[in-house]
Amino acid sequence: MSEKITDLALEIRESFPRNNVEIKGVVLEKRYDEEGKAHITTVHIKDERGSRAMGKPKGCYVTIESEDMPRDDISKENLLMCICRELEHMVDGLRQKSVLVAGLGNRQVTSDSLGPRMVECIFVTRHFGREFGEEFMRTNEYGDVSAIAPGVMAQTGMEAVEVLEGIVKKTSPEVVIVVDALAARSMSRLCTTVQITDTGISPGSGIGNHRRALSKKSLGVPVIAIGVPTVVDAKTIISDHLEKVLTKQGYNEDEIDKFIKEVFQDEMDNLYVTPKNIDESIAIIAKDLAKVLNHCLQKKVSRS
Amino acid sequence: MSEKITDLALEIRESFPRNNVEIKGVVLEKRYDEEGKAHITTVHIKDERGSRAMGKPKGCYVTIESEDMPRDDISKENLLMCICRELEHMVDGLRQKSVLVAGLGNRQVTSDSLGPRMVECIFVTRHFGREFGEEFMRTNEYGDVSAIAPGVMAQTGMEAVEVLEGIVKKTSPEVVIVVDALAARSMSRLCTTVQITDTGISPGSGIGNHRRALSKKSLGVPVIAIGVPTVVDAKTIISDHLEKVLTKQGYNEDEIDKFIKEVFQDEMDNLYVTPKNIDESIAIIAKDLAKVLNHCLQKKVSRS
Amino acid sequence: MSEKITDLALEIRESFPRNNVEIKGVVLEKRYDEEGKAHITTVHIKDERGSRAMGKPKGCYVTIESEDMPRDDISKENLLMCICRELEHMVDGLRQKSVLVAGLGNRQVTSDSLGPRMVECIFVTRHFGREFGEEFMRTNEYGDVSAIAPGVMAQTGMEAVEVLEGIVKKTSPEVVIVVDALAARSMSRLCTTVQITDTGISPGSGIGNHRRALSKKSLGVPVIAIGVPTVVDAKTIISDHLEKVLTKQGYNEDEIDKFIKEVFQDEMDNLYVTPKNIDESIAIIAKDLAKVLNHCLQKKVSRS
Amino acid sequence: MSEKITDLALEIRESFPRNNVEIKGVVLEKRYDEEGKAHITTVHIKDERGSRAMGKPKGCYVTIESEDMPRDDISKENLLMCICRELEHMVDGLRQKSVLVAGLGNRQVTSDSLGPRMVECIFVTRHFGREFGEEFMRTNEYGDVSAIAPGVMAQTGMEAVEVLEGIVKKTSPEVVIVVDALAARSMSRLCTTVQITDTGISPGSGIGNHRRALSKKSLGVPVIAIGVPTVVDAKTIISDHLEKVLTKQGYNEDEIDKFIKEVFQDEMDNLYVTPKNIDESIAIIAKDLAKVLNHCLQKKVSRS
Repeated sequence: MSEKITDLALEIRESFPRNNVEIKGVVLEKRYDEEGKAHITTVHIKDERGSRAMGKPKGCYVTIESEDMPRDDISKENLLMCICRELEHMVDGLRQKSVLVAGLGNRQVTSDSLGPRMVECIFVTRHFGREFGEEFMRTNEYGDVSAIAPGVMAQTGMEAVEVLEGIVKKTSPEVVIVVDALAARSMSRLCTTVQITDTGISPGSGIGNHRRALSKKSLGVPVIAIGVPTVVDAKTIISDHLEKVLTKQGYNEDEIDKFIKEVFQDEMDNLYVTPKNIDESIAIIAKDLAKVLNHCLQKKVSRS
Repeated sequence: MSEKITDLALEIRESFPRNNVEIKGVVLEKRYDEEGKAHITTVHIKDERGSRAMGKPKGCYVTIESEDMPRDDISKENLLMCICRELEHMVDGLRQKSVLVAGLGNRQVTSDSLGPRMVECIFVTRHFGREFGEEFMRTNEYGDVSAIAPGVMAQTGMEAVEVLEGIVKKTSPEVVIVVDALAARSMSRLCTTVQITDTGISPGSGIGNHRRALSKKSLGVPVIAIGVPTVVDAKTIISDHLEKVLTKQGYNEDEIDKFIKEVFQDEMDNLYVTPKNIDESIAIIAKDLAKVLNHCLQKKVSRS
Repeated sequence: MSEKITDLALEIRESFPRNNVEIKGVVLEKRYDEEGKAHITTVHIKDERGSRAMGKPKGCYVTIESEDMPRDDISKENLLMCICRELEHMVDGLRQKSVLVAGLGNRQVTSDSLGPRMVECIFVTRHFGREFGEEFMRTNEYGDVSAIAPGVMAQTGMEAVEVLEGIVKKTSPEVVIVVDALAARSMSRLCTTVQITDTGISPGSGIGNHRRALSKKSLGVPVIAIGVPTVVDAKTIISDHLEKVLTKQGYNEDEIDKFIKEVFQDEMDNLYVTPKNIDESIAIIAKDLAKVLNHCLQKKVSRS
Repeated sequence: MSEKITDLALEIRESFPRNNVEIKGVVLEKRYDEEGKAHITTVHIKDERGSRAMGKPKGCYVTIESEDMPRDDISKENLLMCICRELEHMVDGLRQKSVLVAGLGNRQVTSDSLGPRMVECIFVTRHFGREFGEEFMRTNEYGDVSAIAPGVMAQTGMEAVEVLEGIVKKTSPEVVIVVDALAARSMSRLCTTVQITDTGISPGSGIGNHRRALSKKSLGVPVIAIGVPTVVDAKTIISDHLEKVLTKQGYNEDEIDKFIKEVFQDEMDNLYVTPKNIDESIAIIAKDLAKVLNHCLQKKVSRS
């Protein structure tokens, strides 16, 4: 079968022929968040067998899909709060921890600019203590938040993981939250779906660049990854469409495979399908994710 | 047959079943430019019959395709000079005329930003006379060049043609040169092909937005349009691929048509296929086209 | 006396030796807006005599100075609503009129980019009727708003007034609102003061470039100008400081004049004093002014 | 004496009353570079006594002042090559070393954006070995260059020195070259003068922010700093002008000091004087410095 490209654990799970059959080592859980009007799916990869079947590291992958793009401010706010809750659920006592937020990707490439743009809107407070005194920090209940866009190898000559390893060693955050643009299989998920996982991230893994992973193993502290699909690989979307049609026409799996190989030519590599308004969508989501993080990491703690 | 989207007269001509059969009212001419290492194709639409067959206004459409993207500076320079020659060939005495250069499109949408970005690099000289005196102009042999990016309706509430009509009426240029991003059918033409035409342009015509044309008729002076393909409509590229495969498999035209309709769903509308490096490519081409225009419109005239 | 540069009628008025003496043909009115916590000063230039004394065209200049930069959202909102009220007060039935908003200045020069940045945030609706039908317009009570950034002569080769004259003639708005960055004399007014006037504007007049005016006379419809000081001319601020000190030390006016001339050298021309955070301040004010205009021009009208 | 702000060792040296008197521990050397048409001044601070007198760390400060801004390409090229020579002179065998280039400053603040903008134009090659094999590196004689813009504390919550310490530890470059915008005392030096020093840099030292130094001591490898003045502190320029005038008028040093203190008010803090074209100038110099570094770090080595 020709390789399908997606960064969403949910979509990998969906690609198994019969969706409701159990895959050993993988637990699927769906629920509906009433307030956020969002479908929340959790894929737990429990053991090595599940990891092999899914082609993803062990851990917990939460996908938040909004029913439709909220147009009014209140629905939007509700959806963002729903993302907050899932994030807080994943890290015990997140609000009390020192956090480094890292925006992965290339600021100069629109579809890859989500992380760096998000970082520009993060409210950083790690230096407040040093600048204004610990008393100021306590009174104002600020979190301990730092943020960086480590860039991509073509810009820096260094892997994002090298840059972040160095910074984490030096500044000792307790948690790292990385934000990245993902590849999806379904157009309808572009800029509408958020995946949160406790497994960290392999930069560019979804689109075929195998770099070293950003994970607890490499950075030494828990790494939460937040991703939003911004591109669909052209080959993937086309073969998905073809499969459906050919299956209906009675082709078998081998024939379908052969047919699809014939359709593709080399010039289809490195091509993405994007909606026309991708520039605007990414600008909005970058701000929204920053809003979520600023809320989670800075909210006033009720103390008794 | 499902609608194919392209702004290149050359690709419309190619789409006719047998390429070498004559279409009444349309004259095709191919040559090779030795210095620029470029294939130059001219499509002359001679009369109403040709115009109907091609779905394009009467006039002359010149397409310049570079053999491969020139990597060294000298080959690049040669290609740009080749574009200059074609442009000068199309307008008699271009260098002596007062010219308004208009960069169409939306600066905020990467694939549509070619025109506005190009305008930022145009060397404007129309005001030099007023500022520094006519003597200064004569001594330095400056052209009479003004430039504007009229924006798109969603930004201004006005059609580009309304904005340009007003400005042309007020500032009376003798020629208008509009630059715009186009849609092509072939991925290999993205950011590598230039079309120059004396028919003006219908903003967005290639991608289904029917706005009023920018032409000699609307503006009152000759309108030269320069376009470079920056997007391929997702439906178009997929159906092109399918057609080839299905034809090979012995499907007839009706069957192919039916098959393709089944493949598409509504969610495929307004989707474009772009190469990953589109941001960078557009930045480069915008500067290259400005270089071509600055050369053509400002070059020293040998006087005896 | 060495030339003092300011675009604020209020500052010209203040420069008269004894502030409370009446200048013939000029009426000064001060009040305090309780809700907006803003000082509002109106300078009416009533006749030619006043115009000569002030060096400004006849008309009404309203200056809104906020007591201090509002930090919380509600105070900010109140201040913006106060600006709305002054604007509506200046144009009868503004909400019902078709309006062209023009953002003057150079997007590439930080201190001059207020107008173009503001225009990017204007909600344009002029084309909605054509696109979605008059019924849609009526139901949704949209205003009739178009917007443009005409650029500066060094970018376009055309004067802003030429570009706007052409567009106004073609699209026939009933009112033109121009927004521009101004020069002030006092640092404390940078990015904190708004001047609204019914006299239009002379682009660059405050900083010594004498271009043709944008006014009812040139455009044929009422021209409201909204300006915010973003720079202080270096010579102006220095001579203001010196004057104060030298006066205290008993120097007479001639001596002061001579002293100041000696301090300045040619290298002090074309120099501006700006606060370090000018980039951020301008980004904020551009959005705020757009918010004011979007509110005034689109607010729901209660109909009986 | 009121504090004068400058980052240029040359200007500190000039500020000593009698320029040609020897300062113990400081050696001054002037020469003229014929090819680059540049005045080159070297200030060697030899010992602690010199360091105290100058208020700068021990080391070598080379200032390159172009006679006038070169307008044609060849003169410009010559000047840039002259900067290359001074840089190579400071680091033995620079071309053979692995180098991390760091662009300091805030990308969002025009006058502080020189470093980050320069970094965007650096040709990074450190990863080529890993990506394409050592053979490829040897054949093409690429240098080993990485690059980063560490941001400023208000954006990241971390000091630039923390970020760079981490990265240097992890990626082990042999030399770090930092590029930063400086403050000068003289307007005529803005964007026309380059200072190269082997002492590293104290971010923001010239404008009053005392951060930890970037130096061999903190980073563990030699740190070369390249700086270009982009701002003049408003107080500094004004007091310089006043001093000249008052001295001529026969005031003594104490009187001058008192006079200047009276002129200044609190609102003069954090104010900079900039030329109107600062945005454009910084864009040009960022590219020029990147060109210098790309040349020095990648030039073909003649091998026998």
